[in-house]
Amino acid sequence: MSVPETMLAAVLGEAGVITTRELPVPRIAADEVLVRVHRASLCGTDVKIRSRKFFPDGGPAPYTFVPGHEYAGVVAAVGDSVDEFVVGDRVVTEAHRGCMRCTNCLRGAYTDCLNYGNRGKGHSTQGMTVNGGFAQYVANPVSTLTKLPDNVDFDAAVVLTTVGTVMHAFDVLDSLIAGASVAVIGPGPIGLLGVQVARELGAHPVMLIGTRPGRLDIGAGFGADTVLNTGEADVVAAVRAATGGHGADIVLECSGAPAAVDTALAMTKRSGTIVLVGFFDQPVTVNLNHAVMNGISLRSVRGEGAGSLARAVSLAGQGRLRTHELVTHHFPLEAIAEAFETYTARTDNAIKVMLDVTD
Amino acid sequence: MSVPETMLAAVLGEAGVITTRELPVPRIAADEVLVRVHRASLCGTDVKIRSRKFFPDGGPAPYTFVPGHEYAGVVAAVGDSVDEFVVGDRVVTEAHRGCMRCTNCLRGAYTDCLNYGNRGKGHSTQGMTVNGGFAQYVANPVSTLTKLPDNVDFDAAVVLTTVGTVMHAFDVLDSLIAGASVAVIGPGPIGLLGVQVARELGAHPVMLIGTRPGRLDIGAGFGADTVLNTGEADVVAAVRAATGGHGADIVLECSGAPAAVDTALAMTKRSGTIVLVGFFDQPVTVNLNHAVMNGISLRSVRGEGAGSLARAVSLAGQGRLRTHELVTHHFPLEAIAEAFETYTARTDNAIKVMLDVTD
Amino acid sequence: MSVPETMLAAVLGEAGVITTRELPVPRIAADEVLVRVHRASLCGTDVKIRSRKFFPDGGPAPYTFVPGHEYAGVVAAVGDSVDEFVVGDRVVTEAHRGCMRCTNCLRGAYTDCLNYGNRGKGHSTQGMTVNGGFAQYVANPVSTLTKLPDNVDFDAAVVLTTVGTVMHAFDVLDSLIAGASVAVIGPGPIGLLGVQVARELGAHPVMLIGTRPGRLDIGAGFGADTVLNTGEADVVAAVRAATGGHGADIVLECSGAPAAVDTALAMTKRSGTIVLVGFFDQPVTVNLNHAVMNGISLRSVRGEGAGSLARAVSLAGQGRLRTHELVTHHFPLEAIAEAFETYTARTDNAIKVMLDVTD
Amino acid sequence: MSVPETMLAAVLGEAGVITTRELPVPRIAADEVLVRVHRASLCGTDVKIRSRKFFPDGGPAPYTFVPGHEYAGVVAAVGDSVDEFVVGDRVVTEAHRGCMRCTNCLRGAYTDCLNYGNRGKGHSTQGMTVNGGFAQYVANPVSTLTKLPDNVDFDAAVVLTTVGTVMHAFDVLDSLIAGASVAVIGPGPIGLLGVQVARELGAHPVMLIGTRPGRLDIGAGFGADTVLNTGEADVVAAVRAATGGHGADIVLECSGAPAAVDTALAMTKRSGTIVLVGFFDQPVTVNLNHAVMNGISLRSVRGEGAGSLARAVSLAGQGRLRTHELVTHHFPLEAIAEAFETYTARTDNAIKVMLDVTD
Repeated sequence: MSVPETMLAAVLGEAGVITTRELPVPRIAADEVLVRVHRASLCGTDVKIRSRKFFPDGGPAPYTFVPGHEYAGVVAAVGDSVDEFVVGDRVVTEAHRGCMRCTNCLRGAYTDCLNYGNRGKGHSTQGMTVNGGFAQYVANPVSTLTKLPDNVDFDAAVVLTTVGTVMHAFDVLDSLIAGASVAVIGPGPIGLLGVQVARELGAHPVMLIGTRPGRLDIGAGFGADTVLNTGEADVVAAVRAATGGHGADIVLECSGAPAAVDTALAMTKRSGTIVLVGFFDQPVTVNLNHAVMNGISLRSVRGEGAGSLARAVSLAGQGRLRTHELVTHHFPLEAIAEAFETYTARTDNAIKVMLDVTD
Repeated sequence: MSVPETMLAAVLGEAGVITTRELPVPRIAADEVLVRVHRASLCGTDVKIRSRKFFPDGGPAPYTFVPGHEYAGVVAAVGDSVDEFVVGDRVVTEAHRGCMRCTNCLRGAYTDCLNYGNRGKGHSTQGMTVNGGFAQYVANPVSTLTKLPDNVDFDAAVVLTTVGTVMHAFDVLDSLIAGASVAVIGPGPIGLLGVQVARELGAHPVMLIGTRPGRLDIGAGFGADTVLNTGEADVVAAVRAATGGHGADIVLECSGAPAAVDTALAMTKRSGTIVLVGFFDQPVTVNLNHAVMNGISLRSVRGEGAGSLARAVSLAGQGRLRTHELVTHHFPLEAIAEAFETYTARTDNAIKVMLDVTD
Repeated sequence: MSVPETMLAAVLGEAGVITTRELPVPRIAADEVLVRVHRASLCGTDVKIRSRKFFPDGGPAPYTFVPGHEYAGVVAAVGDSVDEFVVGDRVVTEAHRGCMRCTNCLRGAYTDCLNYGNRGKGHSTQGMTVNGGFAQYVANPVSTLTKLPDNVDFDAAVVLTTVGTVMHAFDVLDSLIAGASVAVIGPGPIGLLGVQVARELGAHPVMLIGTRPGRLDIGAGFGADTVLNTGEADVVAAVRAATGGHGADIVLECSGAPAAVDTALAMTKRSGTIVLVGFFDQPVTVNLNHAVMNGISLRSVRGEGAGSLARAVSLAGQGRLRTHELVTHHFPLEAIAEAFETYTARTDNAIKVMLDVTD
Repeated sequence: MSVPETMLAAVLGEAGVITTRELPVPRIAADEVLVRVHRASLCGTDVKIRSRKFFPDGGPAPYTFVPGHEYAGVVAAVGDSVDEFVVGDRVVTEAHRGCMRCTNCLRGAYTDCLNYGNRGKGHSTQGMTVNGGFAQYVANPVSTLTKLPDNVDFDAAVVLTTVGTVMHAFDVLDSLIAGASVAVIGPGPIGLLGVQVARELGAHPVMLIGTRPGRLDIGAGFGADTVLNTGEADVVAAVRAATGGHGADIVLECSGAPAAVDTALAMTKRSGTIVLVGFFDQPVTVNLNHAVMNGISLRSVRGEGAGSLARAVSLAGQGRLRTHELVTHHFPLEAIAEAFETYTARTDNAIKVMLDVTD
């Protein structure tokens, strides 16, 4: 595959501005892979990056930084030590590469790397601390890529980064979830994929809780055994009724709504677990004594975690994930500003908004 | 439901003899449930019981003991403290009830109860240390029963006790198995159900290894991605080829063949796990140094373990288990001697041989 | 040992009243042990019981209920099935006996029993849902007792119930704590014992955080590497300084102060764990987003949990726990009202207030 | 610290030959540290290296390879990205650096790296696949070093690599070991250190099993509650007697004797765990059915594993490890051939034989 010298890339300008420009195609190190990006998608974190609120220190110089951490493409070149991939392989990415030398990375917790953002020590997060995938080419550490099965197209692949997060939320429980009751709060992309993963891994019943009927309908289509609209039902009572009065074994909090944590606590079984996946914009007031009295744990995950993307890709390759319902819009890379507007305004019920980077 | 005074029951006579006789219907304690048995099935342990080799001390007096630990039926009466079930509920059983007061039971390992066989302290194993289900009625500790979904018929239900064992073999790994590579050695009922459970819980690839083509064909029908006949293929090489050269993450040893353990070791990934499910009739010679050099663990399970039957029943209720291919024969309870002969001689490719206890 | 017909017992009267009266010596079931109580101690839960706020439904009839869940004594009689103990054995108790038939009990989580308070199904909590140890005799389920080594006297033994809770807080982490950094917030009895257990199990550094200098001094004497007074130091900065900037691997929240949770979060290492041991009187406002962004988990424990009391007793028998500094007062059982006043008013810096039930 | 151009180093010659020569001081990469070695020790693996049996492919060219994986020294220079250490820091090493990009490394199992020996991908094992510490200087990946507390001298430090292995054997159990009964088979350095670590982490009783009285005496001095000579006692019966008839919760097999595995199985509690630490020279014949019938697991560890060396160093810094009894001999680096002879012949009861590399 011949690789050009320059490429089209989206860059972060002043706060609020994303535009495109020509940039040199990145060079790769010995343990890196050059990916020709085919498809990328926007996520809430990209919105924070656009506003520059993501960067406590102001962030990178305007028009130098390429965002994008959800993307898939084709291997265009490999570093000297790479034999895990060959040019032409179709691949999907996870965001995190740990320093792999701190105590967290050494024991497998690389998404919680103690050297976060320290590129000199080897840490990088695609599209956050190093250039990402809203560009025709991107350099990826080899460990961040997973090969795509032939039957997984690029639209489906891009969503797998999110599935990896969901998978990791279940993975940290250190247990099978077959036969466990699972409640998912928040029918955004993560929650809707959480419904599917829970169901495919054998959880039952799977309950989805939210406020928007359209999203809840998608969840029902994705296999939720029960969908509950917080505006219409006593969701705690409904979850308890569906679980023999005991509450759910596992509650996935994907909404980021502060009130959701108390709701989650009230619907969790004694000795059960809440996994916090959503980000909170403000402090949360919560009846923690209920957790103590009932032996309930609150776990959290940030991103995909070891092996979770591979598990997600495997599930997709088995034909067991439906992702196309979530892909509502496509824009060419050049129209990235409009893509952001569509995503943030939820225009036409936008869920996942895709960038078609390469035809 | 009116309960008679006496019932037909199969009893163990002298070594090698199983016959039927009238016995009083068992009385139930406050925490027990009287089950009217509809269907029961024979398992290898029952054959050892018939020969009395199962009992190191000679076993119970002839014609007093009712074997049978795989059965399903309908609740006929409940003990004074039981509100978990009502008369008429359809139920399936697991074999083990721990003493629930030794250190193992208190921490959840009741199938490894330190008071095994000590009924005075509360331990019982249906059909092994107390009377079992080869009879019209049987008394079950409430904790050994799980309610059956309406869509699971009795033939399917009886096999769920075995599925519970398989589930427990995965449960002890303390991990999701989605995306993990799983090799199953031994296409008996446990191995064939292991293929299905692995697949339903997201494992991939799932590889089945055995010697009998008919059984391997069933495994292929149950969703094994690869079936390997040890007489025709280098199974270790084939498993490695199917797993990028690394070997399987998880190997389930269900054959009880001594040579299988070395085969299992050779096909296990570094840092992977072998779960020993099959019973061995003789000492096993094994290259344990390979385990040490490669960080491979050998786990074992005896029976179903906490929550595993419920997980199995849930999977069945979700319509995700195929069990009817395994049910090859039905006999009335009165013909139990013939049922044993059919099972041990594998007459007409017998796999699971059923007793129709109640019409 | 001859057992009388009646005994002296403390009973709960109207709200706020604890007094003594004669009661029949309890009868024991087949799986119970009659304990002649020698020493008992008061705990915060007892204060809630005295006020009857502990009982959402009003609680037992006045002058019928015996509180007390921290006690030690001598076996006076054993039930028919008990061979774990003989008359004359010195024993200490844990509070919880699960129903041992619900899904939580079956998997070892009996302190989170789904049949809490349902005595008919077998659940009991000494001194909370059944009569406890503020009396000359008490009936204990056999599983709640642990034999005392000869070198552990009754004052030390009574405190072991609390050590069991601390042990369980570490036990739920599913990991060694040797070499881990541990911060303990709240220098009450639980926190002070937490310092010791952490240290004995190899944690380093062990940091104690509180407000009362006298209590912090005891903690220093118990082996805390650092004691931090929240009134005098920036405790978060100090914990970070003592841990290479990363924060503590494990934070034990024993204060029950709502503000302590945010403090705990801020001093926890990425991917670290907070264990909530203290009870909260009110809702807690907490920056949960910090947990999500840093992969921090909040675990909780209620009481001792499987095997934790035995671990605590073993440590005491090894001569590795100092408890006498915590035992500040002794009263005869008849003076229990005064004992409560001393405890609640912290008269003379009261920490653990003991009842000498039998000479 | 001024670093010379050349150094004295021990090198592997033809099979059986270790000698010394001048070699260039190694250059360090950006993530490496140059260590001036002060003390090193010989281990059984070094003997296999000397014979070249360690290398299935014949091994490195004669007189080019420096063995040695147990050593401590002082930081002489740091790579460009290293701020974890400064020149002058006293450090000890672990052997393994994973590729940190395979699936095992990513989830924390770097001692089971799938790219073992592949230096191009980043894997190295000091003194086995890359030059080690039997030299005045050695290059270490930064992640393999741990800073030494001031109160840990070099003789003690060198032994900590072995303590790290022992620690890892307990670490893989995912549980506290306080109050657990532990039997250690094989009173070599690993077993003797296993006794100490078990005891310090709260295990009780700790039982040591072996054949050589002198070694067993050292174990008694290190705090074993019971020492058992297999030539004089029925060790299985003795372990059962010391554990209430149930057997040990944990058995550490450190002898490498094939017969020891059956002994280990027979003395393990139902549902207990055997950790295989010793290497076996030949296939092992073992009653694996006993494992299956009793739910016993066999785990294995290879080397130190994530965080285990740091835990060991912490314990040493707390003054809780006695290692000097194990250090029986010192030789200058020039006398390495004699050191090997002393070690292999166990001259004068040699246990750990030290090389004094730098005064």
